[in-house]
Amino acid sequence: MTRFASAQTIAQDIRSGKRSAASVMQAVLATIHQYDSSIGSVTHLFAEQAMQQAHAVDARLARKEELPPLAGVPFGVKDLFDIQGHVTTAGSIVLRNVPPAAQDAAIVARLRAAGAIPVATLNMDEFAYGFATDNAHYGITRNPHDPSRMAGGSSGGSAAAVAAGLLPLTLGTDTNGSIRVPASLCGVWGLKPTMGLLPREGAYPFSASLDVVGHFASTLDDLKTAFHIMADTSPEPEPQTLRTACLGGWFAQNLSPALAAAINRVCRYLGLSGTVELPQTPTARAASFLITAAEGGTLHLPRLRSVAQDYDPATRDRLLAGAMLPASTYVQAQRFRRWFRGQVHALFEQVDVLIAPAVMCEAPLLDAPTIIVDGKPASARANLGLYTQPLSLPGLPVLCLPLLNTNTLPLGLQLVAAPGREAALFSLARKLEQAGLAGRCPLPATQQAA
Amino acid sequence: MTRFASAQTIAQDIRSGKRSAASVMQAVLATIHQYDSSIGSVTHLFAEQAMQQAHAVDARLARKEELPPLAGVPFGVKDLFDIQGHVTTAGSIVLRNVPPAAQDAAIVARLRAAGAIPVATLNMDEFAYGFATDNAHYGITRNPHDPSRMAGGSSGGSAAAVAAGLLPLTLGTDTNGSIRVPASLCGVWGLKPTMGLLPREGAYPFSASLDVVGHFASTLDDLKTAFHIMADTSPEPEPQTLRTACLGGWFAQNLSPALAAAINRVCRYLGLSGTVELPQTPTARAASFLITAAEGGTLHLPRLRSVAQDYDPATRDRLLAGAMLPASTYVQAQRFRRWFRGQVHALFEQVDVLIAPAVMCEAPLLDAPTIIVDGKPASARANLGLYTQPLSLPGLPVLCLPLLNTNTLPLGLQLVAAPGREAALFSLARKLEQAGLAGRCPLPATQQAA
Repeated sequence: MTRFASAQTIAQDIRSGKRSAASVMQAVLATIHQYDSSIGSVTHLFAEQAMQQAHAVDARLARKEELPPLAGVPFGVKDLFDIQGHVTTAGSIVLRNVPPAAQDAAIVARLRAAGAIPVATLNMDEFAYGFATDNAHYGITRNPHDPSRMAGGSSGGSAAAVAAGLLPLTLGTDTNGSIRVPASLCGVWGLKPTMGLLPREGAYPFSASLDVVGHFASTLDDLKTAFHIMADTSPEPEPQTLRTACLGGWFAQNLSPALAAAINRVCRYLGLSGTVELPQTPTARAASFLITAAEGGTLHLPRLRSVAQDYDPATRDRLLAGAMLPASTYVQAQRFRRWFRGQVHALFEQVDVLIAPAVMCEAPLLDAPTIIVDGKPASARANLGLYTQPLSLPGLPVLCLPLLNTNTLPLGLQLVAAPGREAALFSLARKLEQAGLAGRCPLPATQQAA
Repeated sequence: MTRFASAQTIAQDIRSGKRSAASVMQAVLATIHQYDSSIGSVTHLFAEQAMQQAHAVDARLARKEELPPLAGVPFGVKDLFDIQGHVTTAGSIVLRNVPPAAQDAAIVARLRAAGAIPVATLNMDEFAYGFATDNAHYGITRNPHDPSRMAGGSSGGSAAAVAAGLLPLTLGTDTNGSIRVPASLCGVWGLKPTMGLLPREGAYPFSASLDVVGHFASTLDDLKTAFHIMADTSPEPEPQTLRTACLGGWFAQNLSPALAAAINRVCRYLGLSGTVELPQTPTARAASFLITAAEGGTLHLPRLRSVAQDYDPATRDRLLAGAMLPASTYVQAQRFRRWFRGQVHALFEQVDVLIAPAVMCEAPLLDAPTIIVDGKPASARANLGLYTQPLSLPGLPVLCLPLLNTNTLPLGLQLVAAPGREAALFSLARKLEQAGLAGRCPLPATQQAA
C-alpha cells in the first residue's frame, strides 16, 4: 500500500528490501493516475525520469551502497520550483517560452541529494498571487476532503496532493499564507520556516521582502526530517518545557464556532488561560499586503506592459494595482514593519510559542466563495489570509498544524516562534499530536475511494 | 589666537593652563561675531550656556580634576541635531512650534561627555535636501574663500564655519553628498563614516535608508579624534601598506582641468597607474536619488498636505515629486542597490582605498549657479552630487580630503573604503597630508581679514 504512506515508511521499506524503489514509484504513479483526476493537483508528471531514478536507487541497493536518508521517496513541487531540464511556468502561460531550467532549485537539489525523487509539479495560483488555486490556465485544484470546495492557495496543489495521499512530501512557498492556508483547508502539516533560513534560489519570486519556501507533509516526523535536510542542519533536541500562549484580539475574532471550540480544547489541554495580543494587527496585515502588491507589481511591470492579456485576470488586475501604488505607501509599510518586528520579537522574551488560528473556517465552496468577516459575507479569496498575513510581516517561523476530531472539514492552527526556533514548534506540535489533538485529517470514506 | 586653532591645540592649551576655557570661549564668540556676518554660517548661538560650560571646565581644572580629551573645545552642529532645551528646526520654519529637544542628539551627547561645548547651530538646506545652503528662511551661507560663491550643501554652514576659522569642529549629515560637497567646496576635512556606525538618534531624518551623520574638522587629527569619540571606539593602528586605486569611467568624466591635474599629481605620488571602474554608475546615482526622494517625500507627506506653503519652494517641490513616485520605481531602486552593493564590496577584495573626485570643479557663483556637465551648462544644485551620489548607495565610509596647491578655489577628493575600514582612510589621508598634497585650504589674505 503506497497511498498515504509516509516518507519515513517508504524510505525504511526500500532500505530494508521490503519493497523496491521501482515498485514504490510505479505504485505512486498509478495512484496519481487513479485519484488526481477529481482533485487536479498535478500539472506535470516526470514519470519516465522518476522511474529511472527509482531504478538507480535499486541498483545502488543491489551494490550494497549506503542509501541517503530519503532514498526513493517521491515528492512533488509547486510549479514555481526549477527542475533541471523543465520549463518553470509559475502557474502561468506567460513563461511558457522561457528556456528549461539549467539546474534544480536549491531546496529541490538538497532533497534530491538526500535521495528523494521529484515526481510532479503541482498546481498553484498564477505567480503565487492568491488563496484559491483556481488557475485560468491550469484549472482548479479541488479539496480532497470535498471536491466541491477550495483547496486553498497559492500552494493548493501541494497541499491537496498530500491530503489525497498521492505524495508524502511536497514543496510550496508562503508570502502571505500560501502554505498555511491550503495546509489548514486540506488538513495536512505545513511549515513556513524562518524567513531567510532556506535558500530561495530557483524558486520563481513574488515578493523579495516576504517570500519564504517551505513544505507540506503527511506526518510531523516527515515535516521535521525534510526541514533539516533542506536547511542543511542537524535536528537539535526539542525543548521539553515551553512557555505557550494563545493570541487574542484580532486572532480571536471571526472564528467559526467549531474552530473556537477546538482552540479551547487545545488551550485546556495545555493549561493555558488568558491571551496575549499583537499590537496594530490590522495595520500589520495591510502592510504585508501592500509590500507584496508593490513588489509583485514591480517584478511583473515590464511584462504587464507587453503581454497583460496572457495573465490570469485574477492575478493581472492586482499586479497592475500593485505597480501603481505610490512609493510613499510602500516606504510607510516597510517602516511600520521594522517597528512591528521589534514589538513581536519583544513578545518572545516572555513566551516560546504563540498559538493562533490558521484560517477562520472550513474550506469555502467553489461555487459560493464567500466567508463571513465581521458579520458580513466577504470574498474568500481576499480574506482567507486574515490570520496569516499579519504573521508574515515579522519573518517568524510558523508551523501549520491540522486539528483532529473537530467533526468538520479540516481546520488548522498556526504555531509561531521566534526566528530560528523551529525546534520549539516541532516540540509543541508533537505534544499535541501525542494527545490526539493533531494529525493529518483522514479523508471521508467516500473520498478515499474517489 | 583662537581663529583657526585646532581642537587638539585648544584642548592642550586649556589642559596645560596656557589659556582658560573661558578665554577661549570668549575669543570664539568674538570671532564669530566679527567674521560670520559676511558668511552666514550660524543660525543660533548658545553664547550664555557655552560660557557657563567653559567656566565649569576651568573650575574642574582648578580642582585638579582630570579633564576629558576635548574639554573646552567649541563645536557647532548642523541645525538638525537636537541640543537639549533648543527647538530643532532642521532649516525650516515648519518645525518652529515643536517642543524643545528633551535631550542632546546621540553624537552631540558623546562629544559633550568628552568635554566639548556646543556653541552654535549652523545653516543648511531646508530638511537637508540640497547642495546649495541657499535657505529661503535662514538665508544663504557664502563660501569663506569667495563670498560670491556657494559653500555647497546641505551641511554648508558646518563646512563654512570650519573653513572661516570660526570653529575647529562641526557636525553634519550626508545622505547623497551633504558632507562631501561642502567640504570639497570650502576646502576642509570631512568624514562620512560607514553607514550605521554612528548613532543617528536625535538627528532630524531625511532618508532612513541613506542618512549618515558625520563631521568636518580643520585638521586630520581632529577629524580622527572626533570620529572615535562619536563612534565610541579606540583608534586602531593605521595600516602602513595600502592597495590604492583611482576610480575611472564616470569619475574621470566632467573633471575641471585643474582637478584632473591635481588627481594626476596624487596618482603619480602614489605610483598608481590605470583605474578601476564601478559598474552601472549612472544607475547607482539615479537609485540613490530616487530612494532619497521617495523616503523624504513619505516623511513629509502629512505636513505637505497641510502646510506646503511654509516649506522652502526649492525643497517643497522635490518632496512633493518624491511623494508621488510609484512604488515600482522605489522597489527597483532598492533591488539595484542590493546588486550594486555586492559588486562594490567585491571590488574591495582587490583594493583598500579608492580615490575619486568629490566635486568636479570650484564652487559655482551664487549669481550664476551652473556647472558644465557633458559639455553643456547644467544646474549646479542638481549636479554637484555627480560623484557623491553613486557612492552613497553602498553605505561605504568616505573621507573628503581638501587638496592643496591647486592654484584654484578649494577642490576635494573622496577616499573610499570597505565598510568599517575608516583606519585605511585616515592612513592614506595622512600620507597625502605629509606629502603636502592635502590640508585645510588657507583663506586668501583678503578673506582672512573679511
